[in-house]
Formats: sequence, C-alpha cells, structure tokens
Amino acid sequence: MSSQNSARLLAESLRRATGDSNPALISSVIPSLLRGIGHTAAALRMAHSVETAGSQNVFGDAQLNVDVLAERFFRDELAACPAVVAASSEEDPVEVSTQSSGVVKAEEAAEAETYVVAFDPLDGSSIIGPNWTVGSILGVWEGRSALRQHPRKQLAAVLGVYGPRTTAVIAVRVPGREDAAVCVEVGVADAAGSCEIIRSDVRFAAEPKTRYFAPANLRAASEEPRYMGLVTQYIARRYTLRYSGGLVPDVVHALVKGHGVYLSPVTARSKAKLRRAFELLPVALVVECAGGQAIDPVDGRRILETPLENLDETAGLICGATEDVELARAALVG
Amino acid sequence: MSSQNSARLLAESLRRATGDSNPALISSVIPSLLRGIGHTAAALRMAHSVETAGSQNVFGDAQLNVDVLAERFFRDELAACPAVVAASSEEDPVEVSTQSSGVVKAEEAAEAETYVVAFDPLDGSSIIGPNWTVGSILGVWEGRSALRQHPRKQLAAVLGVYGPRTTAVIAVRVPGREDAAVCVEVGVADAAGSCEIIRSDVRFAAEPKTRYFAPANLRAASEEPRYMGLVTQYIARRYTLRYSGGLVPDVVHALVKGHGVYLSPVTARSKAKLRRAFELLPVALVVECAGGQAIDPVDGRRILETPLENLDETAGLICGATEDVELARAALVG
Repeated sequence: MSSQNSARLLAESLRRATGDSNPALISSVIPSLLRGIGHTAAALRMAHSVETAGSQNVFGDAQLNVDVLAERFFRDELAACPAVVAASSEEDPVEVSTQSSGVVKAEEAAEAETYVVAFDPLDGSSIIGPNWTVGSILGVWEGRSALRQHPRKQLAAVLGVYGPRTTAVIAVRVPGREDAAVCVEVGVADAAGSCEIIRSDVRFAAEPKTRYFAPANLRAASEEPRYMGLVTQYIARRYTLRYSGGLVPDVVHALVKGHGVYLSPVTARSKAKLRRAFELLPVALVVECAGGQAIDPVDGRRILETPLENLDETAGLICGATEDVELARAALVG
Repeated sequence: MSSQNSARLLAESLRRATGDSNPALISSVIPSLLRGIGHTAAALRMAHSVETAGSQNVFGDAQLNVDVLAERFFRDELAACPAVVAASSEEDPVEVSTQSSGVVKAEEAAEAETYVVAFDPLDGSSIIGPNWTVGSILGVWEGRSALRQHPRKQLAAVLGVYGPRTTAVIAVRVPGREDAAVCVEVGVADAAGSCEIIRSDVRFAAEPKTRYFAPANLRAASEEPRYMGLVTQYIARRYTLRYSGGLVPDVVHALVKGHGVYLSPVTARSKAKLRRAFELLPVALVVECAGGQAIDPVDGRRILETPLENLDETAGLICGATEDVELARAALVG
C-alpha cells in the first residue's frame, strides 16, 4: 500500500469515528507525530552503543543520545506543523513556542484550531540496554496551553512502540463528548510515518481468555501489605504476569491482548514517580478511549479529572480493564 | 564500519578467546546464524498483521507466518554452510540432513569439522502481538548428532534478540576445556548478518548495583509455597521485577545488566515446559559462558550435565548470577 493511501485511510477512519470537528488534528498533527515516531525508530535501530557502560546511557564519541535525538525529531515535526503553537517535553518541561521560520502558525493566522503537545520522547531508558521494547508518549491539547485546563481539552494521545516492529496506538476523542472516542493501532512502516491500520477498534474485552497483571515498583509491596495482598490475590487467581518496566509496552500489552491491569502504587517510602503531563494524562486518554479506566491510587479519582497546575506534577496509576481497576481500587485506595 | 571488517573483528575476537581449534565454527557456522537472525529481523519488521485475531498467529492472505519464515531462513543458511551436516528445530523436531544441491558437506568431504544445529527459530510467540522483544535460540553441537552426546559437545550457542535494534549474544567454548569460554554481545546491522561488537566480555557482575528477578509461571506459586516464599523473599530484599515472558529477552536482560535470576519451576500442576534441545541447553551454555549457572529446579543438577536422549525432552530452569541461583536452589530444590 502506498504511503499516501495508508495515511488517507487512517485519516478517514479517525474522521469517521470523531466527526469533522478538528480537521487539522487528524490531517496534520497526528501525521506529524507518526513521522516523529518513524524517525525515532530508525535512530534506535542504529544505536548499538547504547548503555555500554552500565546503567547510564553512554554513547560513542560520534553518537548522540537517542533521547536527545527523539526529542529533536518530535520538536522538528511540531515546528513544521501550522496548528501546533507550543510544546513541552519530559526532557525540557516548559511550554515553548514552536515558531519556526517559514511556518505560519495558526496563532498568527488567527485560525480556529490551535494545539499544544506535551510528550515524553523516549520512555523506558532502563530497558534500552537489554534491547527490550520502549516507547514514546504524546498528548495533544486543544488551545494554547495544557496548564490549568480541564483534561478533557486533551483531545488526542499517541503511544509509539519501538519493538521488533514499529507500531503506534492512537486515541482521539470528540471535543465536548466524552462518550465519542476511537482507539486505533497502526504499524509505522518508515521514517516518513506511512502506516497501515492493524486494529481499527482497540478495546478491552468483556470476557478475556487470559487475565494479565503488571505490578510496577513491586518492592513497595514489602512495606505496603495491601499491595502485597493484591499481588497474592492475582497469583491465587492465576493471572499471568507480564511486566517489562516500560510504561508504554506494559500498557500496550494490555490494549493488544484485550485485558490487563497496570499498577504503580504510592507508599510512604515509594513516592509517586509518573509525570502527569508527559506520561499519565496521555496514557489515561488512550486507556479510556479503549473502554478502560485510569485512576489515581491515592484518592481513586480519574486521572483525567484533575487539571495540570504545573508540568512537574507526579502521581501513581492504576489502569486497565474496568473490572480489574475496580478490584485494585477496592484493595489499594483509601 | 564495513560488513567485512566487522565480521573479521568478531571472528578475531572469538578466535582470540577460544583458540584455533574450530576454524569453521568461527568463520562459517556462526556467521550463517547471524545472517539467519538478520533475515528474521527484517521479516518481523514488516509483519504488522501478526496476531490480529487475538491469541493465535493469524496472517493476512498474502503473508506467511513469521515462525515459518524464520525457520526457513535458518534452514537455508545452514544448508549453504559446508560444516553443518544436520539440523533440528522446535518447529520440526527431527534431525534432518542439511544436504543441498551444490554444497559439498563436510560429511561427504570427510573433513574434520562437522556440526549439527538445534534451534528455536522464534521464541516468544505470545508477545509478538503486543510488539515486545522476542528472540531466536540456537545451539551448535560438534559431531553428527546432538543426541546421546555429553552436552559439552555443544560448543556454541547464539541468542538472537529482536527489539528496537537487532542484537545477538554469542557464546563459544573450547572443546575439552570447560573453563575456556567467551560470551560476546553484537549488534546485527542488516540481513547480511554484518555486525559490530557491543560488549566483548558479557559477564555477571560480582557486586551488582541492582538485583533483578524474572519469575516464570508465577501462577505456580499459588500451589507451591516454596516458590511463593522465594518470591516474597525477593520482594522483601527489594529486588527489581523484570519479566517479559520471553525466554530470550528475560535471559538477555540479566546478561546485559550483569545481574538477574530467571526461574521456571516445576510443580505437580505446572509441568516442565522448556525444551531441552532448543531452549535449555543453548541458554545454559550462554549463561555459563558469562560466568553464571543454569540448573534443573527438580534435582539441582547442571542443565549441561545430562545428555539429550530425545528432542522432545522438557525441564524447568533456574539460571542467572551464581549467588542468586544458589539462593533459589536452597529454596526450591529437593
């Protein structure tokens, strides 16, 4: 399938599900993110000298850190995208204008559609060395800032997955209608971002054949009997363990399998460590668009309920299939 | 670096460590396996329609199953390799002659060096769908059969790792000298099998910064209190959990990090499920060449001590850093 054809099919599929309310989001912003994912995949594929010195990312003299490269690929794509007026990232957590010479931004042109993007260019640095799947996390917010907005202003989120293949999970929802949403999995063929649809409706199954759990920071179970009790319950009920330690692969595993629960609890000794802007809010949007839930393990509130006050905020996470989020809520929250 | 140069450097490195006793193994057999890994990586990268129907590998009309493709790539490479006289695989567990028209095999030519290869072309089928790292496992035996030989006849093993990059861990030992061995990690650049050395001496660290555990078949802990007790001990001692469910990524994680223990216990309800010929014996050789241990969780014997009587044999596994294999042995064996 040609690259133009596949991009058109994806745009049609997203438009069918969400209507024509946000044409630039579908036809320009999401394709630019897929190109960033394609470029990052190509850079990772060549980055054999990653982490040769142990736990730190150390590159050879002539090589750049892949985190830095990924950051640059996404920044360059966003700068060339007229509707995107600002971006912030985990590597540079300030909202910076994406003005670039030659691109007339929607802000200047006074067009209706403007977006800001908050992203984690490369999540999972601890597992790059052993060559495990890692990912990118990107959230797209309507307006001129992600700060002090209701999270329903986050209209789209994309998870890039760098494994044996390059894939992406794209979630889009209709502004003002929390019930109208779509979640699609695509294969990204190359750095030009051309892609094919793998699953047009990513969705948690009502009656899964196998139940999965992914317990982050399992060490915390030694000091938190409720976490230990929940894990023991999963073992007794013969859930299957899958835990890579990368937020993107762990969440995408659940989405593709149609079942799974991801737990990152917060205890006195284990602080909240997931960034709300760059990790939690985009992941929560994807999970909700696939029919699941994403809640805060401290107060049990929806992740997508609390506005961002600053870009450094962190929290824990319980997300996945609804039934299992409720089981974990009953065990951990309160 | 040119492909010829990098192949020459790898061969020199392996020869330096193991001497000149097996020239065809170093200059011909191992390069043919690396080409098979390169071809498999390229096929996986394009296989976006994997598992679209759920838990089974279902490919589009025009596509072949990647397991079948990988099997064919390795068979073709081995057929073209004069020193390899037979091969068996997890997909076709019979030792079949690798005769092919036009290639004069060592057997016919009455040369000194002959090998058989036992391999699992693509291990980890359950995690191909979610795009997690998977692998190939290959063991190279001196002689004309892997059956009814002492496992010290297995002179080399290669683990191919298909993730964001393509890498391989290569272990070779000197015949008759169990103390002389080398374990190298390489990056595989392309389908031609050209590669660069990432780590020239893969080795478990004496004093790791972080300790890892990978508990396979954790469900079995619900019926086996000793397994549950060991897992609880890891949690209490603040080990880090990393468990992908793929034998290759799980073992390679430990090798690259310099620490880790992989557990696949056998209980009344959970039968032994790892194949000795295609999984356990090659993995055990790699782990031992990196200074670790690999033992049977039932009787505590070295995996590399018991000859293969047939190609269908299965067993459990405890492998990894010596100190942690001993801890697990004390908890589980007997």
